[in-house]
Amino acid sequence: MNPIDLPVYVAEVGRRARMASRDTARAPSAAKDAALRLAAAAIRREAQALRAANAIDLQAARTAGHDAAFVDRLALTDAVIESMALGLEQIAALPDPVGEMSELRFRPSGIQVGRMRVPLGVIGIVYESRPNVTIDAAGLCIKSGNATILRGGSEAFHSNRALAALVREGLQTAGLPADAVQLIDTTDRAAVGALISNPEAVDVIVPRGGKSLIERISREARVPVIKHLDGICHVYIDDAADPEKAVRIADNAKTQRYSPCNAMETLLVARSMAANVLPRIARIYADKQVEMRGDAEACALIKAAGLPAVAATEADWATEYLAPIVSIRIVSGLDEAIEHIARWGSQHTDAIVTEHHSHAMRFLREVDSSSVMVNASTRFADGFEYGLGAEIGISTDKLHARGPVGLEGLTSQKWVVFGSGQIRT
Amino acid sequence: MNPIDLPVYVAEVGRRARMASRDTARAPSAAKDAALRLAAAAIRREAQALRAANAIDLQAARTAGHDAAFVDRLALTDAVIESMALGLEQIAALPDPVGEMSELRFRPSGIQVGRMRVPLGVIGIVYESRPNVTIDAAGLCIKSGNATILRGGSEAFHSNRALAALVREGLQTAGLPADAVQLIDTTDRAAVGALISNPEAVDVIVPRGGKSLIERISREARVPVIKHLDGICHVYIDDAADPEKAVRIADNAKTQRYSPCNAMETLLVARSMAANVLPRIARIYADKQVEMRGDAEACALIKAAGLPAVAATEADWATEYLAPIVSIRIVSGLDEAIEHIARWGSQHTDAIVTEHHSHAMRFLREVDSSSVMVNASTRFADGFEYGLGAEIGISTDKLHARGPVGLEGLTSQKWVVFGSGQIRT
Repeated sequence: MNPIDLPVYVAEVGRRARMASRDTARAPSAAKDAALRLAAAAIRREAQALRAANAIDLQAARTAGHDAAFVDRLALTDAVIESMALGLEQIAALPDPVGEMSELRFRPSGIQVGRMRVPLGVIGIVYESRPNVTIDAAGLCIKSGNATILRGGSEAFHSNRALAALVREGLQTAGLPADAVQLIDTTDRAAVGALISNPEAVDVIVPRGGKSLIERISREARVPVIKHLDGICHVYIDDAADPEKAVRIADNAKTQRYSPCNAMETLLVARSMAANVLPRIARIYADKQVEMRGDAEACALIKAAGLPAVAATEADWATEYLAPIVSIRIVSGLDEAIEHIARWGSQHTDAIVTEHHSHAMRFLREVDSSSVMVNASTRFADGFEYGLGAEIGISTDKLHARGPVGLEGLTSQKWVVFGSGQIRT
Repeated sequence: MNPIDLPVYVAEVGRRARMASRDTARAPSAAKDAALRLAAAAIRREAQALRAANAIDLQAARTAGHDAAFVDRLALTDAVIESMALGLEQIAALPDPVGEMSELRFRPSGIQVGRMRVPLGVIGIVYESRPNVTIDAAGLCIKSGNATILRGGSEAFHSNRALAALVREGLQTAGLPADAVQLIDTTDRAAVGALISNPEAVDVIVPRGGKSLIERISREARVPVIKHLDGICHVYIDDAADPEKAVRIADNAKTQRYSPCNAMETLLVARSMAANVLPRIARIYADKQVEMRGDAEACALIKAAGLPAVAATEADWATEYLAPIVSIRIVSGLDEAIEHIARWGSQHTDAIVTEHHSHAMRFLREVDSSSVMVNASTRFADGFEYGLGAEIGISTDKLHARGPVGLEGLTSQKWVVFGSGQIRT
């Protein structure tokens, strides 16, 4: 395709998506669920063809010298194929958010006023070379009554094309427009720019991938973006913390997995608790080979326990390691912890460990993050753990959805009025 | 002030607003309500000084040749002054939306997950030369725990400055930071540009004024904007309409007031009902000197009744008259009405008049507007009529708030997690 045609091409994809979105918005739950189940069946049926398409991408990725982790994420193994099919069936089993009416109240004028949950319209998903996102994102958009335009990493092109075709087959067989799920059918990177700058084509963009992808999209987008950039998550161990809970949560939040955005990066410890809990926590980190970067007091305590620690710099408080590294700071108490989080945090997820009720409630109220927790690991900030049934991403923005974004975040609420002939006087 | 300093000045105003917003976000309801009541008392106490400041603006406006309507909107009469004070007291009496927790549910992991309503942060309000907006906007922002940066029309500069000082006095006396309400203290128009392009300074912009103001802000803003551009509202009289309700609603939606954005601009009439209701409606319009622009069928029916009508062009379907003009089209039924609204509407407010249950429910579901109504006048699309207690504006966007935006639209919801030491496994 000639690059000069890209805006025209994207506009045409957008026009088709817009038309399809009117049908998906009013589609009965049964039709949407049938489409999802049919797509799941098609994925299982075509497992061999999917692996063949994927093999082309894998070969090219190896030839291009991508590393093992990259190739891993790209691979459609039998397990990945089954989990994609299962994922669609799980989405089909969720309650339909669309059309839900709530808060219908009679007003003095006699009209009854409430809200109805409705799809956003057309969702653009821009993601890296993980073909399973094609299925996951398409499934959530179908269920929430939206049309979607998918733009996956070019290294997954053949895999994505094969997967999208199966979803479109499911839609069509269920009597829904195939154009409710479209893949940008070119590997030209400029297509992303054309997509995210066309508010006629898409109502919202959900980028899924690394920080550089999300930064670029946020900077260039002319449509709203549901996103988070950093997950600089904190655990604050309060004066009144239960030491057992403190040790358990500080361990889990950092070490259960290092790469998720809800993993803790900075541990804040109230001075009065530090001598009690920090050596024990440091022992666990040291055993798990987590590098500790502390302020002077923290380093002194850790070293006194015969464990290694290095001096943290200001840059550490602002860094999302996503690695076996933790920054540690001793604070005077709740106020200083809240100050630290306000200054250095990324409004993602922050937790307090305390048995002091007022401290807990102040932390919840005053820490301005999309998830705030008392006596729980930051790793719980997740659509499945929160009971959303699925997650398309996490938002640290303040408008619309905050925190884990599930089906509800792909919808909004309009006002509905039931009258019996009322007029305004 | 030197224009070159504007971005620096706005950044400094933003920095102060950001700091103040942390205090207002955690302020007790009683302190916020006290600030509102103290400001109301100060406005009554300083009525004479307000009129004196206003007189400077009025004199300049007359000298500059502004028309009577403009000067009217600018004037702080005794009635306007009392209504501003009363408005603040009414906002004080509303329930505090901040801190409200909802949907707290236990999850299988043992954590309890729910949401807490929190302020957005810093709200920028850009408005025309209506000094009462200064008070109205400041009041809603204080109540919702936000800081606000106000930029009113330069012709109201002295009036706005005097009003803002009284609100700041109320805040300070109530123990809240005066900087929770700041006025951009320059008449330089470039200040608007500096404000709306600084996401550090403001979290969201609410423009209040005419279409050209809102278009400019939407185009140039680098922060989210809560807005609507057009109110091309429709009433569709269905095959199964009650003719009495149809006549009453078509009359009220068009003629109760011509200038509000929720006034009807286009009347759609099902062919089977047209001969019955259209001559009666046309008689009312003719008596009220409303110009009728119809398609061929509508014109024929109106003229057959001995009343004047002119041929509508395509441009009429896309026009918000805000005047005693109405466009009228005969449609084959519900589907064509929904199509017309999808093509020409502005997603503001649309109503169906029908006694047919399934038609009513399809219209509610399938018309993608921020307010959809059955058997009620479009003029009800209003924060007070909906029971919001107040209204800062109307949004036709799909993310965040849709339709009338009250206190809740100036807040969002974060996730709160109550645990007892849970970790993720």
